[in-house]
Amino acid sequence: MKKFLSDDFLLGTDTAAKLYHTCAEKAPIVDYHCHIPASDIADDIKYDNITQIWLYADHYKWRAMRACGVEERYITGDASDREKFSAYCKAVPKLIGNPLYHWSALELKRYFGCEKIICPENEEYIWDLTKERLHSPDMSAKAIIKRSNVKALCTTDDPADGLAYHKAIAEDASFETRVYPAFRPDKAVNMTVADYPGYMKKLGEAAGVEIRDLDSLKTALTNRIEYFISLGMKTADHGVDDYLIYRKVNGHTCDAIFRKALSGKRPDEEERNAFRCYMLRFLASEYVKYGTVMQIHYGVLRNPNAKMFGLLGADSGYDTIYGRSCIYDLARLLDSMNSDGILPKTVIYSVDPGENAALDSLCCAFNGDGEVKMQHGSAWWFNDSIPGMREQLRSLSNLSSLGSFIGMTTDSRSLLSYTRHEYFRRVLCGYIGELVEDGQYPDDMNTLGEVVTDICYRNTVRFFGF
Amino acid sequence: MKKFLSDDFLLGTDTAAKLYHTCAEKAPIVDYHCHIPASDIADDIKYDNITQIWLYADHYKWRAMRACGVEERYITGDASDREKFSAYCKAVPKLIGNPLYHWSALELKRYFGCEKIICPENEEYIWDLTKERLHSPDMSAKAIIKRSNVKALCTTDDPADGLAYHKAIAEDASFETRVYPAFRPDKAVNMTVADYPGYMKKLGEAAGVEIRDLDSLKTALTNRIEYFISLGMKTADHGVDDYLIYRKVNGHTCDAIFRKALSGKRPDEEERNAFRCYMLRFLASEYVKYGTVMQIHYGVLRNPNAKMFGLLGADSGYDTIYGRSCIYDLARLLDSMNSDGILPKTVIYSVDPGENAALDSLCCAFNGDGEVKMQHGSAWWFNDSIPGMREQLRSLSNLSSLGSFIGMTTDSRSLLSYTRHEYFRRVLCGYIGELVEDGQYPDDMNTLGEVVTDICYRNTVRFFGF
Amino acid sequence: MKKFLSDDFLLGTDTAAKLYHTCAEKAPIVDYHCHIPASDIADDIKYDNITQIWLYADHYKWRAMRACGVEERYITGDASDREKFSAYCKAVPKLIGNPLYHWSALELKRYFGCEKIICPENEEYIWDLTKERLHSPDMSAKAIIKRSNVKALCTTDDPADGLAYHKAIAEDASFETRVYPAFRPDKAVNMTVADYPGYMKKLGEAAGVEIRDLDSLKTALTNRIEYFISLGMKTADHGVDDYLIYRKVNGHTCDAIFRKALSGKRPDEEERNAFRCYMLRFLASEYVKYGTVMQIHYGVLRNPNAKMFGLLGADSGYDTIYGRSCIYDLARLLDSMNSDGILPKTVIYSVDPGENAALDSLCCAFNGDGEVKMQHGSAWWFNDSIPGMREQLRSLSNLSSLGSFIGMTTDSRSLLSYTRHEYFRRVLCGYIGELVEDGQYPDDMNTLGEVVTDICYRNTVRFFGF
Repeated sequence: MKKFLSDDFLLGTDTAAKLYHTCAEKAPIVDYHCHIPASDIADDIKYDNITQIWLYADHYKWRAMRACGVEERYITGDASDREKFSAYCKAVPKLIGNPLYHWSALELKRYFGCEKIICPENEEYIWDLTKERLHSPDMSAKAIIKRSNVKALCTTDDPADGLAYHKAIAEDASFETRVYPAFRPDKAVNMTVADYPGYMKKLGEAAGVEIRDLDSLKTALTNRIEYFISLGMKTADHGVDDYLIYRKVNGHTCDAIFRKALSGKRPDEEERNAFRCYMLRFLASEYVKYGTVMQIHYGVLRNPNAKMFGLLGADSGYDTIYGRSCIYDLARLLDSMNSDGILPKTVIYSVDPGENAALDSLCCAFNGDGEVKMQHGSAWWFNDSIPGMREQLRSLSNLSSLGSFIGMTTDSRSLLSYTRHEYFRRVLCGYIGELVEDGQYPDDMNTLGEVVTDICYRNTVRFFGF
Repeated sequence: MKKFLSDDFLLGTDTAAKLYHTCAEKAPIVDYHCHIPASDIADDIKYDNITQIWLYADHYKWRAMRACGVEERYITGDASDREKFSAYCKAVPKLIGNPLYHWSALELKRYFGCEKIICPENEEYIWDLTKERLHSPDMSAKAIIKRSNVKALCTTDDPADGLAYHKAIAEDASFETRVYPAFRPDKAVNMTVADYPGYMKKLGEAAGVEIRDLDSLKTALTNRIEYFISLGMKTADHGVDDYLIYRKVNGHTCDAIFRKALSGKRPDEEERNAFRCYMLRFLASEYVKYGTVMQIHYGVLRNPNAKMFGLLGADSGYDTIYGRSCIYDLARLLDSMNSDGILPKTVIYSVDPGENAALDSLCCAFNGDGEVKMQHGSAWWFNDSIPGMREQLRSLSNLSSLGSFIGMTTDSRSLLSYTRHEYFRRVLCGYIGELVEDGQYPDDMNTLGEVVTDICYRNTVRFFGF
Repeated sequence: MKKFLSDDFLLGTDTAAKLYHTCAEKAPIVDYHCHIPASDIADDIKYDNITQIWLYADHYKWRAMRACGVEERYITGDASDREKFSAYCKAVPKLIGNPLYHWSALELKRYFGCEKIICPENEEYIWDLTKERLHSPDMSAKAIIKRSNVKALCTTDDPADGLAYHKAIAEDASFETRVYPAFRPDKAVNMTVADYPGYMKKLGEAAGVEIRDLDSLKTALTNRIEYFISLGMKTADHGVDDYLIYRKVNGHTCDAIFRKALSGKRPDEEERNAFRCYMLRFLASEYVKYGTVMQIHYGVLRNPNAKMFGLLGADSGYDTIYGRSCIYDLARLLDSMNSDGILPKTVIYSVDPGENAALDSLCCAFNGDGEVKMQHGSAWWFNDSIPGMREQLRSLSNLSSLGSFIGMTTDSRSLLSYTRHEYFRRVLCGYIGELVEDGQYPDDMNTLGEVVTDICYRNTVRFFGF
């Protein structure tokens, strides 16, 4: 029996342990997609207690607590921080096999030096210990990033954002981690934001353009892309929610849809799909100019619980997997870009594990020209778990080239989530170690070490151009 | 090498064996969804031979025999009981890895004390032995249920059923197992029964209501729910066959659809979907009043083989997996209930293993209010197998809370199927044992024991209110 | 640690090793579906170097090379054979876990006696060795087939093909392997060929019929089936690409669609679907007369990359998984055949691993009449990998009858691909061995040996009538 969360956690073979401890563990982190507010870093914020860092914003934990029958008051309600932590400690033991169990324990171990099990018995001890530790100087935002060996990270930013915090971060010469803005124009593209005209006004002001039709919208976005690029942007991200239907409409039609939305009317689903495809194509044509990597996250049914959406808003732990495959429409969208020479380097993430094989085969259909152009992104969201990552690696390695994979990103709002890179790297080395010890790949530690370092670090640097 | 079907069958680790033998094995059974006719229990029936209990009604076995090339005559035809058993013994050795292989062997071992392999060589021995044993007093329906440690079970009953047998069972003070009726209004809701007007007449008579429009149908169903509740009903069950399309229609439109069907015309697919959604919402609003648990079984393509449906009717081993996801429409249906405050506690079962992740995430979207409200039901039908159960547990534990799961139910027509609880419990302990010995969960036998007992027994009692 | 590609490769248990070495390894090969040109066999061709046999036509390798970032020049371009081999050797080490890694290594070992790892360091050695070996007499097409223990194989042939090479092969008394033509009328059925009228002219000439309407097309196809049957044909194959929609149209409507296509106009998607269903039904009615097995390969999105399709044409490594399930429409198509008594013995292959369970359950819905009529074909294309085959076996054994399975076929264009039978047989024995040693099936080597030999060889001979 292996001890819980031992040094060889998830490293089931000697080969795995060797690969992890000699290569993976030491590779720097490049977190190319996360949701940490740049302000948290610029302000070098600190937390007062573990609830603030664990439970104030982590809708994964909220969701799990609800599944354990915890009352909403202790999740997003007015219970005290201490009470909320208590509720979490009560729920955790039920989460056998859940990544939250491991993430929480790893974060305690790595950042607080605490190996106590999270459970009601240890609740007080953990509360006190973490509270004390959070007040020490090595627990500020920048200090956490530094000790986590993060060489670079990309935040997720609205085109209307002035990126003042990014400038402030860049000006701090003592902080060596590069923090890049990433372009996330979902509000403009998806037309699902509550006050679309109001958002357009804000975007126009940021861009110095009066947005009154499609052309001026495109000008505004182009301006913002140039601005983001001037501050180092390497990648843009798109949440292609619900069901993607590929439509190719001309600018004239698209202009009419946009004017409708701008006038405060809500375009119907068909119109929004047409507009989305048009804009994705337009933005791709911009990205391709700068070598910007386009990321696509798809397959999520957002806010299915209208009642709780009304009470708590978006991103509160209710989103779900849409279920219907849109690989065919995605293929047509990529093909239309490819045919017009405007397909950028692209990373695609499906929230539905049932799409792994189809997505791997799709990515392979648009590789070529002597570069690894398409990447099936690391196991995302509901798949960011041991079996989820293993399935993604298994599918990727069988249908494509594992050695060309760009590996993990946290996609997280929390500064403690860098342990997810550890989690991924252990799964990766575990998987490769199994193949080797099962006689499926030669026991050649040099080649294996190169491959592991490529996936953990070097491929990412090359692909994004960090 | 482990011996076939040994005491540690499916218990691959010491932890698994300990959990099974100290906790799981001893927990009583609450079989909250099965298809045993109440009359079989009330009449305390006995069987004359193994063919009667194994092959008269088990369409799983029929299906497997056809896949082995057995002639229909030996399956549903006029061959003798002895010949049919012989045909089954000939087929079984081909069923490597099939749950029927294990179920059959487990039933022989547990109920007949026979460890012989089922194969042509042992056919005569097994026939004779089982025939003799079936005539002993401990092999009547009630005796089997008693020795299987079944504390409670829910049958599946049509609203038109008078439940006379349930009353008779309840009156037998010597029989300690509680037998609850369960409400299954599929005939009324799905509109696929051959003689819908005839069925409505029958239902109306049972309810003491002349059904001539939607209102009187609702009154009739309400009456029947009250009657079922008076006899202890804890749960209702719905077979949402084929492809669920969510439609929200008003009572007026629905009334027109119903009158059409009542006049003997067949509503089209769109109308039947609209009617089904309306009725599911109406019934949910009734269930919620009584705390009745709503079960939904979805994703089955019923009777795809028209020729054999014509010859043998429904439930004869030809149903298949529909294949197309209706998670989106299911989400909208649940949301419409939730928004109107009429979403009962719900258990959802998908026949398609490809839906595990989407279904787990969907259930989590409607939990909350301080109770575990939504359950992803145990691996159903084509998934009621070792890998099927493991996948369901794996998905559930990664995306939700394994410790809150209500575990297994047989969904069976046969009195010998309680061994499927053993099968499930072994898989459950096997799965948890692996996680623990792999260092993914602390080796804390107290907590683990609580969790296992919760899943095998206590969560079910709490969830349904037995 | 097991040595890479050792004698017990993929045989994780003693039982597996015993089953493989005593039964599976020795069973002859019947390759019931492949794409080897009959001319290659008739001409008993030889290759000059390893690039010719590995990289001239294998779009699996092209695809993988692109995923590794290899320039197109070294894949399908004008680089020299030596340069292309060099590019492949550079890519291979990245293909950890990819079946191409194993296939290539197995082919080197079995046909060239070379156990060197494929990598840049060994490139020259392997190039020289294979070049020398390819010139030896036991490396001609017929010699390779002979030493691979291939008892029979089915090519894939257009109905317009005169089958001259098949006649020539049959006339060579010294060549003992039976080479059967197989009927693949995709061009006629799918209406996606570039010059449909031109193709019809060619087909008409082969059949001695002037094709000018649906009736004459049917006559021509009937003539060709009779001709193929006269040369031993046992099976026909259909590529049901993209998304199958079941439509039942009458001959009159279908005639109009056909005349439209014959006049050089392109029928729309709806018309092509209707025509395809009509023709599949018509051809099934012919196959059933002769006991010909119908194979259906479905779920592929062909040529999604229009740009590369324009440059390289079809089958150049860009096809992908369509993603949307058409099980429901497939069920209706099979049912319509079954109801009319024209459902032949059928093998169905899905390119989407997510369809395994649905397809297994579908096949079981049309078995019966005392024969194993429906087969879920072996893991195809993107699933022809260790996990892909294991998943197919796992699903098949849990939902159907593993012992009745017809096992592997190469579906390959290459003469060296017979090692894929070895690969499959190792996976099969590995899977069965695990079940046995885990106590899930009795350790009865006689029965197990029979089952393994059935799956590797005897079931195929029986099913196709070789």
